[in-house]
Amino acid sequence: MSTPPIRITGARITPVAFVDPPLLNTVGVHQPYALRAIIQLDTDAGLVGLGETYADTAHLARLTAATEAIVGQDVFALGAIRQAIDAKLDTLSITGGDGVAGMITTASTTDRVLSPFEVACLDVQGKALGRPVSDLLGGAVRTEVPFSAYLFYKWAGHPGAEPDSWGAALDPEGLVRQAQRMIGEYGFKAIKLKGGVFPPEQEIAAITALRAAFPDLPLRLDPNAAWTVDTSIHVASELAGVLEYLEDPTPGLEGMAEVAAEAKMPLATNMCVVAFDQIEESVRRNSVSVVLSDHHYWGGLQRSRLLAGICDTFGLGLSMHSNSHLGISFAAMVHLAAATPNLSYACDTHWPWKDEDVVKPGALSIVGGAVAVPTAPGLGVEIDDDALSVLHQQYLDCGISDRDDTGYMKSVDPSFENTCPRW
Amino acid sequence: MSTPPIRITGARITPVAFVDPPLLNTVGVHQPYALRAIIQLDTDAGLVGLGETYADTAHLARLTAATEAIVGQDVFALGAIRQAIDAKLDTLSITGGDGVAGMITTASTTDRVLSPFEVACLDVQGKALGRPVSDLLGGAVRTEVPFSAYLFYKWAGHPGAEPDSWGAALDPEGLVRQAQRMIGEYGFKAIKLKGGVFPPEQEIAAITALRAAFPDLPLRLDPNAAWTVDTSIHVASELAGVLEYLEDPTPGLEGMAEVAAEAKMPLATNMCVVAFDQIEESVRRNSVSVVLSDHHYWGGLQRSRLLAGICDTFGLGLSMHSNSHLGISFAAMVHLAAATPNLSYACDTHWPWKDEDVVKPGALSIVGGAVAVPTAPGLGVEIDDDALSVLHQQYLDCGISDRDDTGYMKSVDPSFENTCPRW
Ligand SMILES: [Mg+2]
Ligand SMILES: [Mg+2]
Repeated sequence: MSTPPIRITGARITPVAFVDPPLLNTVGVHQPYALRAIIQLDTDAGLVGLGETYADTAHLARLTAATEAIVGQDVFALGAIRQAIDAKLDTLSITGGDGVAGMITTASTTDRVLSPFEVACLDVQGKALGRPVSDLLGGAVRTEVPFSAYLFYKWAGHPGAEPDSWGAALDPEGLVRQAQRMIGEYGFKAIKLKGGVFPPEQEIAAITALRAAFPDLPLRLDPNAAWTVDTSIHVASELAGVLEYLEDPTPGLEGMAEVAAEAKMPLATNMCVVAFDQIEESVRRNSVSVVLSDHHYWGGLQRSRLLAGICDTFGLGLSMHSNSHLGISFAAMVHLAAATPNLSYACDTHWPWKDEDVVKPGALSIVGGAVAVPTAPGLGVEIDDDALSVLHQQYLDCGISDRDDTGYMKSVDPSFENTCPRW
Repeated sequence: MSTPPIRITGARITPVAFVDPPLLNTVGVHQPYALRAIIQLDTDAGLVGLGETYADTAHLARLTAATEAIVGQDVFALGAIRQAIDAKLDTLSITGGDGVAGMITTASTTDRVLSPFEVACLDVQGKALGRPVSDLLGGAVRTEVPFSAYLFYKWAGHPGAEPDSWGAALDPEGLVRQAQRMIGEYGFKAIKLKGGVFPPEQEIAAITALRAAFPDLPLRLDPNAAWTVDTSIHVASELAGVLEYLEDPTPGLEGMAEVAAEAKMPLATNMCVVAFDQIEESVRRNSVSVVLSDHHYWGGLQRSRLLAGICDTFGLGLSMHSNSHLGISFAAMVHLAAATPNLSYACDTHWPWKDEDVVKPGALSIVGGAVAVPTAPGLGVEIDDDALSVLHQQYLDCGISDRDDTGYMKSVDPSFENTCPRW
């Protein structure tokens, strides 16, 4: 006989805030705190599964509704759980919260809400079975997962506060200094620069300086669709032979296709292909040649594997996107990447930019630019209850409940406008 | 700590033969015995996993080589197992055996060899975890899986032998009689006719007769690419509004696209899209709108789920193909179909056409046209050692080691030619 189902009895959803530096992007600047929601999925077996996702107000409301919809489901019934969440969301009239920093607006609401529950179910499955989550995804094909140094233009500190330890990076020299520290501490073997902040010539100069300082490391530039098609083609021409890939130079599948037809390097995206229903048009237009996966909006780890298989089938490269995240997401990203044979690029992560977490330290660390895949059952990370309480209180106290990079920037520079494309 | 790996120690590969009626198709006629290879995958945990696949000589040689390549692998390491088999096959110089009844010639050799081992690994996983295989595929979204009545033109019996219990079906009346018995015994709620045997007007008449006899059941016709583009368009026009889908009327992605542009009903295939590297061209040409999956050549159950996800993503329908098979394959098909939300058509099966098996009876039966999904751990079927011995001896005695429908037909009718397209 089979073992009994492991039924979901509920989920504790805890919004948390953690200190975030003033990292600049084309829509504004990171606020002093980044928000996440921590899911602790309870089951009748006494096993608790962990998940982590966005924490904007509308998303929290959807997470609460989704929890109601899946109580009683077996943690192995991932297909039925997705159907239940999809049906439940159809009944809601929650608006907003579809954006990730205002830059991703069309990802599937169902997949975004499903994701942390799916991860938590896999965590429970792994704990019940005595197996790491990577084993539930087809098994790790690598023992460690490489990540990239994710560089940002940044202020020295938040306005009115002391400079943070990273200091300012507002020109090529500042970025090279930032890269030197980050690579010195973590050993990254690839570099990504978040662009779209300064006029393109300045960002070309920054990449050129990084190339000179790190002649052997792959370089990427991501202006978050800050450029017109013409500007994108110009930058692509200037940086031909320098960039490993150019990420989202311009908005939309049509514009990207126009740039792709001219650019010598691959175009990557986590903006114009962020949901399954955008893939076909992208394929037909040849808009991009690398997709950055992100299990938070692609519906969890199993559906991110589907995305990986689609990329493999259609000859698309596969990389991995990151928002500011904590250790639960990091563990999930590492298991997924380890079990994805065609994830051929170093993954993005904001990990070096934060000091706080909700998980006990030690399970995940970046050494030589890579993270060893956890081999403990499930995700391999444990909640630190005290830390969770502290970061939840920080959420309650910080006054931020919806991420707003643009509003924060306007509070500093009233003349700032969120225009796209900007140049 | 995680539980230890469950390592593969070897695999027993047993070719078997089972009695098969003289079912006609466009390349010839089924021989008196159908062949399958039964895989018993041994592990250091003492658990044995079951798989079933083709048994032609070249395939058996590849299965033996693949076994060597995966000894020592953990049954959860499906990605690594695929890589090991792929690498091993690259070193071999086995030729032939790429065909399934001469009709499928381009399926991935790696995926075809991987398939029974992947199924056997999932069977071991399920047994170790106390869970049905469907739970390892995202969980069943239905408790039973519908199948179709798979009708064949056939002779009364093999030449020189007594008529079988089904008798002849060489005209519309014979097919309607066959359908009445098959639906009477199994309760099927959809009908598929294997065509390509008689000139198209006779097969149109057969479908018309089936429509009259079964006004409420979906009908499908599969001539296995026996027709030119023009003939296909003509038949499609004659049967518009009658067929649920038209399966492989003509060879190749280009021809199918030409027919698809004119036909009123969806075109389905298990001939021109049989491997992942054919999907992109099919999508770009709009060659088909329904893909028949088959885990035997799509690389097992996990990769068949990938195919399902691709179909969902690109707006393609999904059905399921069958060759003559035994109970292990039937169990695998049922678990896969149960866990595939977008498998929206009744699946094909040759099940009613055979009396013998290698699995103990009772686990799988067709009632009301559907099979209840097994809930026992793993696939939910057990080898009957005596039956396996008997069918293996039958393999040794039957004189058939490579399926050859055309050669068998020529032995009966020396004027027969395997031409494609025929009309
Ligand atoms: Mg990006
Ligand atoms: Mg067919």
